[in-house]
Amino acid sequence: MALVVQKYGGTSVATVERIKDIARKVVAAKESGHEIIVVVSAMAGETNRLLTLAHQVSEAPDERERDVLLASGEQVSTSLLTLAIRDLGHPARSFLGHQIRIETDNAYGKARIKSVDSTRIIQALKDGEIVVVAGFQGVDEEDNITTLGRGGSDTSAVAVAAALNAKVCEIYTDVEGVFTTDPDICPTAKKLDRISHEEMIEMASTGAKVLQIRSIELAKKFAVPVHVRSSFTDVQGTWLVEEDESMDSVLVSGVTYDKDEAKITILRVPDRPGLASQIFTPIAEANIIVDMIIQNASEDGTTDLTFTVPKADYKKAISLVEKTASVIQAKGVTVDPHIAKVSIVGVGMRTHAGVAAKMFQVLAREGINIEMISTSEIKISVVIDEKYTELAIRVLHAAFIEKQGNL
Amino acid sequence: MALVVQKYGGTSVATVERIKDIARKVVAAKESGHEIIVVVSAMAGETNRLLTLAHQVSEAPDERERDVLLASGEQVSTSLLTLAIRDLGHPARSFLGHQIRIETDNAYGKARIKSVDSTRIIQALKDGEIVVVAGFQGVDEEDNITTLGRGGSDTSAVAVAAALNAKVCEIYTDVEGVFTTDPDICPTAKKLDRISHEEMIEMASTGAKVLQIRSIELAKKFAVPVHVRSSFTDVQGTWLVEEDESMDSVLVSGVTYDKDEAKITILRVPDRPGLASQIFTPIAEANIIVDMIIQNASEDGTTDLTFTVPKADYKKAISLVEKTASVIQAKGVTVDPHIAKVSIVGVGMRTHAGVAAKMFQVLAREGINIEMISTSEIKISVVIDEKYTELAIRVLHAAFIEKQGNL
Repeated sequence: MALVVQKYGGTSVATVERIKDIARKVVAAKESGHEIIVVVSAMAGETNRLLTLAHQVSEAPDERERDVLLASGEQVSTSLLTLAIRDLGHPARSFLGHQIRIETDNAYGKARIKSVDSTRIIQALKDGEIVVVAGFQGVDEEDNITTLGRGGSDTSAVAVAAALNAKVCEIYTDVEGVFTTDPDICPTAKKLDRISHEEMIEMASTGAKVLQIRSIELAKKFAVPVHVRSSFTDVQGTWLVEEDESMDSVLVSGVTYDKDEAKITILRVPDRPGLASQIFTPIAEANIIVDMIIQNASEDGTTDLTFTVPKADYKKAISLVEKTASVIQAKGVTVDPHIAKVSIVGVGMRTHAGVAAKMFQVLAREGINIEMISTSEIKISVVIDEKYTELAIRVLHAAFIEKQGNL
Repeated sequence: MALVVQKYGGTSVATVERIKDIARKVVAAKESGHEIIVVVSAMAGETNRLLTLAHQVSEAPDERERDVLLASGEQVSTSLLTLAIRDLGHPARSFLGHQIRIETDNAYGKARIKSVDSTRIIQALKDGEIVVVAGFQGVDEEDNITTLGRGGSDTSAVAVAAALNAKVCEIYTDVEGVFTTDPDICPTAKKLDRISHEEMIEMASTGAKVLQIRSIELAKKFAVPVHVRSSFTDVQGTWLVEEDESMDSVLVSGVTYDKDEAKITILRVPDRPGLASQIFTPIAEANIIVDMIIQNASEDGTTDLTFTVPKADYKKAISLVEKTASVIQAKGVTVDPHIAKVSIVGVGMRTHAGVAAKMFQVLAREGINIEMISTSEIKISVVIDEKYTELAIRVLHAAFIEKQGNL
């Protein structure tokens, strides 16, 4: 008898009928001899419905209260799934964040889990019950309700699996696992049987929307075996694993993209110490996350500074940047919201040179101009004109993944 | 500066616009110099929507899980109202049942409040915040979520007012206060300026839907001044007060009715000890609440036993009763769902004889047949044919209230 944690996302519990389907799936797993803990997200659409309500009563909703509001979504799906399981004749019990003290810091909207009290879950499992846990929510030290951000239920599931030392944490999605790239754009995309934590983190942070990054970090830290798989079929999905030597031979595991950023350039910034901080401090204070930053020193003592921000924030960012530009006597500000970031990710890059050069070559051959470049140990990202996104993905996938290993 | 508790029901927070209206009302009260605690119900219709979902996933929803589900309704309205108040520039903070430990017993769906921890509320008030408390919900000793039953937010409000020693607990409704009878049926109905706890309890238990009975009991026990008033006007409503001598002169304070019961009669029950218990035990075990019971001993050693149950339960009750009737060899079972219970309530009855006789006379004069009678110290209820309900109310109101004091 193994302890299995299963996480179901919002589309899996979007309707009464789907909730009943999941209940049957959960009961089947239990009847096959496992102890089951289920972690659920809110019914699809519910979080957005609640957010809309929040914005209807308040222009800038207070974060603590918004989290109280949003947490109700998981409370509904959790109790409904528990009711559906019980209706099939199996004992089941729901737990909200405060009932099993999923304790987090108090960063509302993006809280980080610090601990989970497993006492009540262990007792419920001993009583033969299927345990259903509300994802996405926790409480801080003072019992204020917190939420974990988009994809937070993944992290709830891994944290519960870690606290209970589960044999596996199964993340159910509407795809069959983690793919080498988006199959909708590139029909030759392949499902990966396994992927290292580091690669998964880079893929998630460059646009793959399979798992919340924090959940991968937790899985690595507590050695939780994570299995990303389809809620519609029984085929094996993708396992998240520790990196091993056999992976070195694979140069690139995935090609990702992100169309949600905009590019801002400040022209002719005087090249003096302290100016970068003068530019980025107001942006940080407005809670705008800057992704890539590039600065080219020029010979006339000025420099062009280019960076990217989320598209949703770029108007706010421009107005802040224009103020600073005038204060520091830069020449002006230009902006381009029609960009895309395309990345290749693979642990093989650590031991193989020439990957970046080949990437640039492949793109140049198609006439795709590279506007920005950013690299990490196992990732290369380029910013290009948005209209070339799909083409870039297909040629990079062909060059690096379909012809694996040829530099 | 006085501490005021205000309770708003579901219709007051039914839409985003109404929530904003209430927020303005609350802020005005705060700005007039009071400390304010607001207790809210779920948005009108929400509790029923959630109950429907529960019944769609489960034929007989588990009570613990149903309470988790229902409590989410108040979580939404509470956080939305807090957001709306903050949007007006006033600090405000929401508290759910578990955050201020509104501790109840574990009778899911009809839990009774045992205590409220006022620590966090006191701190928030000290910080100058308007406090918004989720009505209708609490937690038991083990932190399981409980709900208090229909009208439970009234009881939440009075319990919070008692714990904080508030100067007044204002219950806002869509009428101007407590009326002598239903103004929709009887246009001469008058608003009562004050009413004793005992009378209010009897009126609530015989059909007046103004306050949850438990809230009146708590108000009496902890001497909480309760003011039932309109959310649309500023006129004085009805105060709930301790009975005093001046009230004795008023024979009847209110005329109430209840069309939600059905009558069941078991014919020719052998008149043996223990048979009543044999009949009512299975009904009690099915959680069906029996209201009135009448038994007439006859000369042939048998008796006809008549009682009333909620209309919603009467089919279940009949099948149980028919089984018992055949076991105990009664002659048969008849049922009448088309009945109404009409009651008159008044503390003056304690000191004046002849009220019942006059009531029967007034009804007889209109040809209304009395099928059952039940009395308490300050109330007389009669069961009549449902079709005479409105007529009975009007003639009783005319005889006892419009011509106050004439026997």
